Parts: sequence; C-alpha cells; structure tokens
Amino acid sequence: MAETFEITYLVTVQQGEQIDQKIEGICLEQSAELPRGVLSDEIQKKVVGEPIRQERLTEGAYEVTIAWPSADVGDDISQFINILYGNISLQPGIKIIGAEWAALHPRLFCGPKYGIQKLRKRYAVPERPMSATALKPMGSSASELADCCYRFARGGIDIIKDDHGLANQDFAPFEERVKACVSAIEKAAESTGRRSCYYPNVTSFASEAVDRYRKAAELGADGVLLCPHIAGLETMHRLARLDIDLPIIAHPSFSGGLTTIGKQGLSPDFLYGQLWRALGADFVIYPNKGGRFSFTLSECKAINEAARSGDSPFMSSFPTPGGGINMETVGHWKSEYGNDVVFLVGGSLYEHPEGIRTASELLQDKLKT
Amino acid sequence: MAETFEITYLVTVQQGEQIDQKIEGICLEQSAELPRGVLSDEIQKKVVGEPIRQERLTEGAYEVTIAWPSADVGDDISQFINILYGNISLQPGIKIIGAEWAALHPRLFCGPKYGIQKLRKRYAVPERPMSATALKPMGSSASELADCCYRFARGGIDIIKDDHGLANQDFAPFEERVKACVSAIEKAAESTGRRSCYYPNVTSFASEAVDRYRKAAELGADGVLLCPHIAGLETMHRLARLDIDLPIIAHPSFSGGLTTIGKQGLSPDFLYGQLWRALGADFVIYPNKGGRFSFTLSECKAINEAARSGDSPFMSSFPTPGGGINMETVGHWKSEYGNDVVFLVGGSLYEHPEGIRTASELLQDKLKT
Repeated sequence: MAETFEITYLVTVQQGEQIDQKIEGICLEQSAELPRGVLSDEIQKKVVGEPIRQERLTEGAYEVTIAWPSADVGDDISQFINILYGNISLQPGIKIIGAEWAALHPRLFCGPKYGIQKLRKRYAVPERPMSATALKPMGSSASELADCCYRFARGGIDIIKDDHGLANQDFAPFEERVKACVSAIEKAAESTGRRSCYYPNVTSFASEAVDRYRKAAELGADGVLLCPHIAGLETMHRLARLDIDLPIIAHPSFSGGLTTIGKQGLSPDFLYGQLWRALGADFVIYPNKGGRFSFTLSECKAINEAARSGDSPFMSSFPTPGGGINMETVGHWKSEYGNDVVFLVGGSLYEHPEGIRTASELLQDKLKT
Repeated sequence: MAETFEITYLVTVQQGEQIDQKIEGICLEQSAELPRGVLSDEIQKKVVGEPIRQERLTEGAYEVTIAWPSADVGDDISQFINILYGNISLQPGIKIIGAEWAALHPRLFCGPKYGIQKLRKRYAVPERPMSATALKPMGSSASELADCCYRFARGGIDIIKDDHGLANQDFAPFEERVKACVSAIEKAAESTGRRSCYYPNVTSFASEAVDRYRKAAELGADGVLLCPHIAGLETMHRLARLDIDLPIIAHPSFSGGLTTIGKQGLSPDFLYGQLWRALGADFVIYPNKGGRFSFTLSECKAINEAARSGDSPFMSSFPTPGGGINMETVGHWKSEYGNDVVFLVGGSLYEHPEGIRTASELLQDKLKT
C-alpha cells in the first residue's frame, strides 16, 4: 500500500452483526462506496481502507484501526472530514477515537500557531492556571459590554471573551463592540499596570469570519473566539494560517450531537482535544463536569490530556473547561487538572454580591495560591 | 414582545428533572446565558426566549414551543444556528422538531431556487419519479468516470452525480472530471435524443465551493452536489443565492450525529426536510429505510412530507432517498412515497450482470410504469 494515515474506531456490534463484516463495511463505505465484487484489484489496493489492528475490549466492543490511502484525501481537509466520519455518521455503533496526526501534518493540518508555552510568555503568566470569562448578556449595548469588560479587567481576569451569542446584532454591532471593549481593556490597564486580553467573537459565514478576524486585529483585540461547528471546521484552519497575530479560542456550540451520543460520534477527547488542536485552536473550550452539561470527569481529563499531549506533531492547545467553576470549586479543579488550564468562569462572577470587579480579584487570588 | 420566531422542541425529562425548569433553562441558555436573577427586566423582555406552548406527549416527554426575539439573530444564519441548537446541543433530552419558517423568510432564509415543478419542467419529466445515480468509485480516472457517466446516460438515468467522495484528488481532478463528464453527457444525448444531467461534487471550503460552483456552470454541468455539513450549512444558502443557474443536491455526509441520536439532536424531517429546504437545497438526499443506514419508514415519510409540504414559504425540495433501492424494490418505494421523489440508485446498477447501460434502461422502464 502507498502512503497512508490511520484512524482508530470504537466499533460496537449489535445482535446479528459480525465485527469483521462491520469493519469491511467501514473500509468500503468511506472510500469506493461499492461492494468489493465490482471493484478492480487496482481500485481495491488504491483507495479501500485496510484494517491493521483489532482488539476486543468487552462483549461486542472492539477498538479497530484502519489505514487509509493518503491519496483518498489529497490536500483537502473537507475530504478528510468525509473519510473520517461522512456516511458512517449515519450508522450506529461507530465512534472515532483517534487519528495518526503525524501522517497528516503538515500536509493537511498545522495545529495551533502558539502553544501553551508561547501563550504563557505572551501574557506573562509563567505558571499558574489562567482565567477567562465571557461578556454578556446578549441584548446589552456595546458600551454596557465595555463597562462589564472594564470591571473584569480591573479585577485582573486574564482573558475576557465575547459570549458566543454576540454576533453582529443591532444591540452591539461587531465593530462598535470591539472598539469599545479594546478601549475598556486599555483604560483598565492604565490603572492596574497589567493588560487583560479581549477576544471578540468572529463566528459567521467563512468569508465574514476571515473579515472579522482581520478587523479584530486592526482594532487592537488580543485574540478571537470562533464556533468552528457553525463557521465550518475548515474555517478555523484557515484563520490559524493567516498571517495575523491573534490566537483562537474554539467554542463547542452546535458540536454536542457529535460528542454526546454514546456509541456513535467522535469521542470528546478526539473532537475537542485532537481534531480542534489539529485545526489550529489555541484554546479549546469544553463543558466541564458539574456544570450545566454532561461530560464525566474522566472524559474531561482525557480532553486535557489530548490537548496538551507532547505525543503530537502540533503545538499544544490550552484546555479551557467551562461550567461548574467558581470561587469555591476552582481550587478543586486546579488539583484535578493541574496548572496548564484556563478556567472559564461566567455566571458566578456576575452573581457575586460584591460585584464583578471584586469577584474577579478574589478569583485571581485563588489562582495564584 | 417584539417580532419573534418560534422553535418547537421535543423535551424529555430524566428522573429528578422538572419540565418547567428544563424549559426555563433552554430560554436562558440560548440567549442571555446568565441566571435570570442577574438580568434586568429590559434584557429579560428583549432577548430571553418565551415558552408559548407545552403539550405532554407521554410520561416525561413534552412538545414545547418557544418564541425567540428576532433581534437575537439579526440577519445572520450562523447566529440562527447558535440559537437553534448551540449550547443545548451539549445537553441531553432536547430535540428540535420544528421552526416557524414564515417568520424567518425571506430575511434569513430564501429556500430552493427552483422547486419540484420548475425542476420537472426544466428536465421535461412531468409526472413520474426521477432517477439519480452516483459516479464512482473514487480512484477512477476522469475518463473512467466519464465512461461510466456515458453508460448511465445512454441508459437514460435522469441525474448522474459525482459520488460525494470525489473532491479534487489527483485520481480525477475537479476540472478535468467535469469536462470529461459533460462531454460524455453530450455524446450520449446525440444518440438518445434526450440529455441526462450531470451534477459534480463541489464540497470544499466555503470559498472554494463557490469557485467550483461557478466553474461547474462555466463547464456546462447541470447542477452540483454539496455536503452542507462539511462545507458549512451557510455555504449552501450562499450558493443558492448566487446568480448561477444550477440546482443543488444536498448530501448528508457528516450529519448523522445530529439526526440519529434518539432524544437529542434534530429530527430527520427537521434537518433534511425543513432546515436544508430553508437553506436552498433543491434535492435532499437522505438514507432510505432498508439501505445500509438506520432511518425508519415513518421517519423517511416525514422527511418527504417536510420537503414537499405546501405549508411552507419556500419552494419545495425534491426528496431523494438513497439506499436499499433497486430494480426489484423501486415499485414498492414508488407506492410508498408517491411520484414526487428522486430515487438514488447506486450499487445495484454497477452490480447488474448485463452492465450499467442495460440496468439503467430497465430502471427507467420501471419508473415509467
């Protein structure tokens, strides 16, 4: 076989299904999409996936690795997604859990531009976990959001991002909002002597996301937020490859169908920790255990591990758990997740009786100890 | 409340959950994303969703309609997707089953450019179901695919599309393939006196999909195939709005996570029949019952109904079931689905002992009776 890349699957067979048949089905479905009987020997060798490993985990559950000819994909990330989880997304009992990234880098994927160490240096936070929060609620004016941004910045929050629901609505149009929030960040820095970072949301149609990314840089923002499952997965890759010096926070909006469906989909650590990292996410937001969402502790730790792993051709991504993190619990999460993490804290700062600025200061104190 | 649009959900509560709390959770999660206690009255009125209907279906399952302020979305389809199924995609027990399209048209969505009646007229097929097939396997050269295209066209297949795995690989680069297949279609038409249609696959990054769509028109193709969940949902809307006279077939690759997950996701008729139609799909391919995939007969019929329904502000989409359809079963499917349908027949034409052309002729005969 010529040059290949490997994908690893968790394959579950139902009553009446045979594992070997199911694997053969994946090999054909995702390539020639015809029964083997009508394929020439040449086509079979040239395009059909080849199973190279199979391990029985429990009754009916197997970890399976298939090698795919690189020529099936060419230099096209869209076609990679198609091979990865195209038609088989419609079939039960097939879950993607790994990929051989070294064989896909740098031809297809280039990873994050910065990596945790460069981001720590850039923001002068050498060791402790970082903090992030979101500007909201939608419906506020640009100056109301900027005021909120100012108070978070005065309290020392490291990264202040737009809520992912802030797009270009009349309430607070993109450009007006970015200008106001950058000013707020600068004003706060004059008082504190340390600049917090502002990351506006650029999620939109692909070409507009590119325009907003450029505009954010022009207007002095420190990075951007993107929902890759809405803007398009490849949009993140394109932004990360532009010659614009702004890190990207990836947000999981609209991705839940892929990662929360038991025996189907992409494992959370594969999607948020591996694929997003490959696509260039500098920070990967994921729903933390105990928040409003539904991942388990071991799933969260697996995302962290995948995003930070040195066993990857890419720079690392900063794991950014959100949900269920507040002043009382942040110490617990620090001991669970270690220091190389950004804690996304939202509602509890807004709800604090002493106000946003004091709440932010208290949170920063907790991160330093 | 100001101008609104409605979304309808199937909400399932688990033990310990209260339905009213869960609905309140959706109303806040998808808008302000803060607890109600920290929101001003003005924000609550201006952006938070408002439940307007709740019907108990069975123990623990409710059909719920929420009205959302149109201002939350502005004129941005990306932000609509975010409100529709952004963060709640990560929560169990919430399924999208309907939207008030009349309130979203034409500000946000414009629907298909053609509709079934115009397509029937364009292709001079006034009444019977139409046929479609796919050029494959990947790995074939452009001239091999064109040869295959010629044989399908000689046999009278109405629409011959690229397999969705044909991108721009070295095997059969996009432009070379389109030229060769258009020639094959023309050559066959000289013999038969009737032109089959060729629809190349333009799935790629958004801007490249636009370029390939234009190029397909220039080179004489009759329409295009697009995988909207790979190219980006909004990409389909953008293609359909361009001043280019080529209908779009939408393919469900990478969408399965959304439609095959029980109590979560989007119902198949919502995604393929309603949302794709709103986004401009002239044909909606979906996995037919009895094929390699997993929809039920009633789910398939619901997709047909949604795609064709006159109770919509949009032109209709041609339901295009694929999988499990062959010479023997096509009569059965015709009686189940009616005439306003395109039957996507693949493998069985390739496998037919008398070859592709004869198999195609036999299939066309079945459609005419």
